[in-house]
Amino acid sequence: MNITLEQAEKVILAAKQKSVAIDTKMNIAVVDAGANLVAFGRMDGAWLGSLDISIKKAKTARFFDMNTGVIGELSQPGQPLFNIEHSNNGLITFPGGVPIKNASGEIIGAIGVSGSSVENDHIVAEFGASSI
Amino acid sequence: MNITLEQAEKVILAAKQKSVAIDTKMNIAVVDAGANLVAFGRMDGAWLGSLDISIKKAKTARFFDMNTGVIGELSQPGQPLFNIEHSNNGLITFPGGVPIKNASGEIIGAIGVSGSSVENDHIVAEFGASSI
Amino acid sequence: MNITLEQAEKVILAAKQKSVAIDTKMNIAVVDAGANLVAFGRMDGAWLGSLDISIKKAKTARFFDMNTGVIGELSQPGQPLFNIEHSNNGLITFPGGVPIKNASGEIIGAIGVSGSSVENDHIVAEFGASSI
Amino acid sequence: MNITLEQAEKVILAAKQKSVAIDTKMNIAVVDAGANLVAFGRMDGAWLGSLDISIKKAKTARFFDMNTGVIGELSQPGQPLFNIEHSNNGLITFPGGVPIKNASGEIIGAIGVSGSSVENDHIVAEFGASSI
Repeated sequence: MNITLEQAEKVILAAKQKSVAIDTKMNIAVVDAGANLVAFGRMDGAWLGSLDISIKKAKTARFFDMNTGVIGELSQPGQPLFNIEHSNNGLITFPGGVPIKNASGEIIGAIGVSGSSVENDHIVAEFGASSI
Repeated sequence: MNITLEQAEKVILAAKQKSVAIDTKMNIAVVDAGANLVAFGRMDGAWLGSLDISIKKAKTARFFDMNTGVIGELSQPGQPLFNIEHSNNGLITFPGGVPIKNASGEIIGAIGVSGSSVENDHIVAEFGASSI
Repeated sequence: MNITLEQAEKVILAAKQKSVAIDTKMNIAVVDAGANLVAFGRMDGAWLGSLDISIKKAKTARFFDMNTGVIGELSQPGQPLFNIEHSNNGLITFPGGVPIKNASGEIIGAIGVSGSSVENDHIVAEFGASSI
Repeated sequence: MNITLEQAEKVILAAKQKSVAIDTKMNIAVVDAGANLVAFGRMDGAWLGSLDISIKKAKTARFFDMNTGVIGELSQPGQPLFNIEHSNNGLITFPGGVPIKNASGEIIGAIGVSGSSVENDHIVAEFGASSI
């Protein structure tokens, strides 16, 4: 099962609306089940460096089928996955990446959001993912 | 002057409609004046390898402010820009990348389209760019 | 639809047997529908440089859902896809990459073979792909 | 002395059986004495992001002829090899990579396993390595 472009655009629209609601400017990326980009939107004035981060967050969330922030706890110094970020041409393991599931609970893709605090990034990603 | 996300989404919508009209499945990328991705959409079933190509076409068109196919003529063996594709982490110099101008004629970004013949890619890119 | 590991190992076994039959030593890679590696085998004494080539051939065949050699004809100087090899972190566009289809004709992955002449590479890839 | 493809496939088979026995889904990579991939298998449903990690674990184990987890202790902040992961196009230094020795105790390659907890990854890698 793979996310469709129509679904991905719905996710981005929801994420944009949430970003506006909490007064932030986000980069929003959606990847499919194969971790390949399906849709992307960068809000006017959003940080340029967050473009790549949002895509890497989406990929990371699908690579391991979990929220990126969970991996980030495990990749700290002394933790089991220290420096896992060096794999897969660069992971981003702080919050803002969330798997996207269909009605049956299957993972069909992931969203990555970057442009504000990691708390805000996660809120927007979660809101986008839950719009499906 | 920079393309806005709203404008970029309008470009992608127009390009999608044109793609459907000529029975193709496209990857469509829009970059801003800084050659950074603003919006992207991959139509369901479009070639996976065209994802990267559509982004590189959009960047190439803005890097040199001309249609990608024009550069492709100059990058042939024996021509002045032979193998220019090695620069900028990889250019794509066949048709499908077109600069986007505002009403005043200023270049505010570029569109890159990939997923069919280069003729079709260019037709869709041209249609998208002219929707602004 | 995605190729399974069991199917991919069957493809590699068939390809190995064909390689032995025509007295060659091959690198054999199988990717899934997302163009990600599923199984790989390098025969003893096979060219080391063909390792990466076999993986890139498999990816290229799935990226564009056609035999790699077909793309190679279009990427020659003066042809429509000149220097397409600069995309996707490097394509290989000479023969030896073949899509893998299931009984319904759906593409579920691809095989890439490298280690001999491109004619032999293609023969082995074709044989492997048709074993499913 | 170099691991043969037949030996590498035996290692992967053993690792797959152990993975099933402990109810995990693994990516399993085997490299030779030159740290180049010999054989690889990704079990159905295994994490996609573990593909690259399993190969990097196998390479890392052979690059330094020790279990990857040992290097990971030395690469922590304040330790002698801090951030060694930046070398060699990316190392993975947590458990799951194990050198493979022949009957004489010579290192002939290495196995890298990724797809579960690092403890499980190491158990499967150790089991695979000891199958020779």
